Amino acid sequence: MSQPSELALVPFVSVANMMRLVMSLGPEQVLADLARYIEDDFRRWPEFDKTPRVASHSRDGVIELMPTADAENYGFKYVNGHPKNTHSGYQTVTAFGVLSSVATGYPILLTEMTILTALRTAATSGLVGRYLAPEGAEVMAMIGNGAQCEFQALAFRVLCGINRLRLHDIDPAATAKAARNLRAQGFEVVECASAQTAVEGAQIITTCTADKQNATVLSDNMVGAGVHINAIGGDCPGKTELQCDILSRASVFVEYPPQTRIEGEIQQMPEDFPVTELWQVMLGAVPGRTDPRQITLFDSVGFAIEDFSALRYVHDAIKDGDCYELLDILADPDDPRDLFGMLTRSA
Amino acid sequence: MSQPSELALVPFVSVANMMRLVMSLGPEQVLADLARYIEDDFRRWPEFDKTPRVASHSRDGVIELMPTADAENYGFKYVNGHPKNTHSGYQTVTAFGVLSSVATGYPILLTEMTILTALRTAATSGLVGRYLAPEGAEVMAMIGNGAQCEFQALAFRVLCGINRLRLHDIDPAATAKAARNLRAQGFEVVECASAQTAVEGAQIITTCTADKQNATVLSDNMVGAGVHINAIGGDCPGKTELQCDILSRASVFVEYPPQTRIEGEIQQMPEDFPVTELWQVMLGAVPGRTDPRQITLFDSVGFAIEDFSALRYVHDAIKDGDCYELLDILADPDDPRDLFGMLTRSA
Repeated sequence: MSQPSELALVPFVSVANMMRLVMSLGPEQVLADLARYIEDDFRRWPEFDKTPRVASHSRDGVIELMPTADAENYGFKYVNGHPKNTHSGYQTVTAFGVLSSVATGYPILLTEMTILTALRTAATSGLVGRYLAPEGAEVMAMIGNGAQCEFQALAFRVLCGINRLRLHDIDPAATAKAARNLRAQGFEVVECASAQTAVEGAQIITTCTADKQNATVLSDNMVGAGVHINAIGGDCPGKTELQCDILSRASVFVEYPPQTRIEGEIQQMPEDFPVTELWQVMLGAVPGRTDPRQITLFDSVGFAIEDFSALRYVHDAIKDGDCYELLDILADPDDPRDLFGMLTRSA
Repeated sequence: MSQPSELALVPFVSVANMMRLVMSLGPEQVLADLARYIEDDFRRWPEFDKTPRVASHSRDGVIELMPTADAENYGFKYVNGHPKNTHSGYQTVTAFGVLSSVATGYPILLTEMTILTALRTAATSGLVGRYLAPEGAEVMAMIGNGAQCEFQALAFRVLCGINRLRLHDIDPAATAKAARNLRAQGFEVVECASAQTAVEGAQIITTCTADKQNATVLSDNMVGAGVHINAIGGDCPGKTELQCDILSRASVFVEYPPQTRIEGEIQQMPEDFPVTELWQVMLGAVPGRTDPRQITLFDSVGFAIEDFSALRYVHDAIKDGDCYELLDILADPDDPRDLFGMLTRSA
């Protein structure tokens, strides 16, 4: 059988190769680079073709496609969310994505995105923290110590200089896991028996729990003046983490209002609840934090442009190495009109 | 590095493996089997979660995602359409697709779909021909002899018993290519200098040209009583092949009216132009052809459920062979909460 032409081959980054790539560059370097790509893309926000994610809901979960495009590239992420999966040994969330050339429509990258999504979520949080956290912040409380926790910590260290962490999870085993991983990364870690204890003396509070319900992991009395809240876990309808009184006191910053009003913490608030779009803050068009006593809140849900930035980053990052394979996924007959001839001659 | 667990691996069918699969089973057998899967899925049409395709348009083309799901599986196809691609050695259309488990959200198949789309399009046409072509049909005219032509011919032979073909294309080289390929498959082929000549004595007329404009490859005077028209090429806004007078005389059958009214031949007609849904014909709920002198017309645009059927078919067909590889595309940490630990331990 003849070899497929070069045009027919698409670089593929497997989970193993993504881990090699990240570990060879260093996770903090990757987070810093990702933040730069995300910031670049947020600053040219109006250039993107933005669609709400396309969701297929079933009894046990959801499968979503998240496409977006600029004039040069098209990207989409496939991601599922199945909270009961862990009972049967499967992951709650898995993801992969594709970057394509808008000019030809040809895919130019296929990559795992389970690890990449964890990285881009953390990079976005750290980036937003750099715009909104109070000056001189040194301590971050982290409520919820699951899969996202360590990535968040690393991002806040490399992007905001945070090295002191106060961890709490309703499951002490999760806190022990995160504390072990984070101490190995050189963090100063305090394990806290309650969320109330965790937030003491923290200038940044990250909430990142997994419960799919309207929970209150952070109540109004726990939030003092000047704090930046990085609210990660409230990210789908019926899943919130914050008492709504906090939202009323805070300046709320979001990625894409039409999506955040459905999926974020602000689903608890009226439809005209005022929010600020982060791309406008990054562009310098509107202010971020204006007062040291102001409570700022990033109501993070994750938007397609962050995945697009992550795909762009990986496409660039693999160029000089061997952290990918080539997949023969595009048929490329010598004569475009002779697909059948290519098929019969292959035998 | 430890091996990824079995749960993390997804079967992948490359272009080379798709060709091996099709040639080992025989293209006609594959077309017949695909038609059976498509018919099964059309007969349970109301069970599907149907969304219009999600399109991203640019100056030179379009990139589309076509998702659909039943209670057991979710599938989507990525497909581009870039008419100018052939000028620079690229294909106009390339495609790949994914089938997933609705219960877990995990992908269970990733496959090339450029060849598979050509097969499912032809299988759908042949299947529809079996319901609508006049009894005793022996001769098919084929106007447009590009990449889809041979697949259509094989599908009409295995599904409708057609072995005599009359070919025409405005490019004689395309006709020569198709005639050569089809004679090698045992067809009786007449090469015709005009479309008018091609349709003489044909009971079935397949139009399948590539021009992206409102063209008239078939005019009203060329269509006699009792003919079945298999109209493949009119499949996006601004791209039609038939003079609209033909539509007025014919009984028009479509896959999914909301999509066909935008993309099909009937984009030329008023919004309330009467059409019959093929799934209802296959279910026996409404009649197909009712009169030997009736002109029937399949206004084919291609619908996500046909891709879903094709994905289901490939998923079943590869089970007993070696026509696939396993891709490490899903991260699967031992402890779902310890994605970071999996990453750092990989080094």
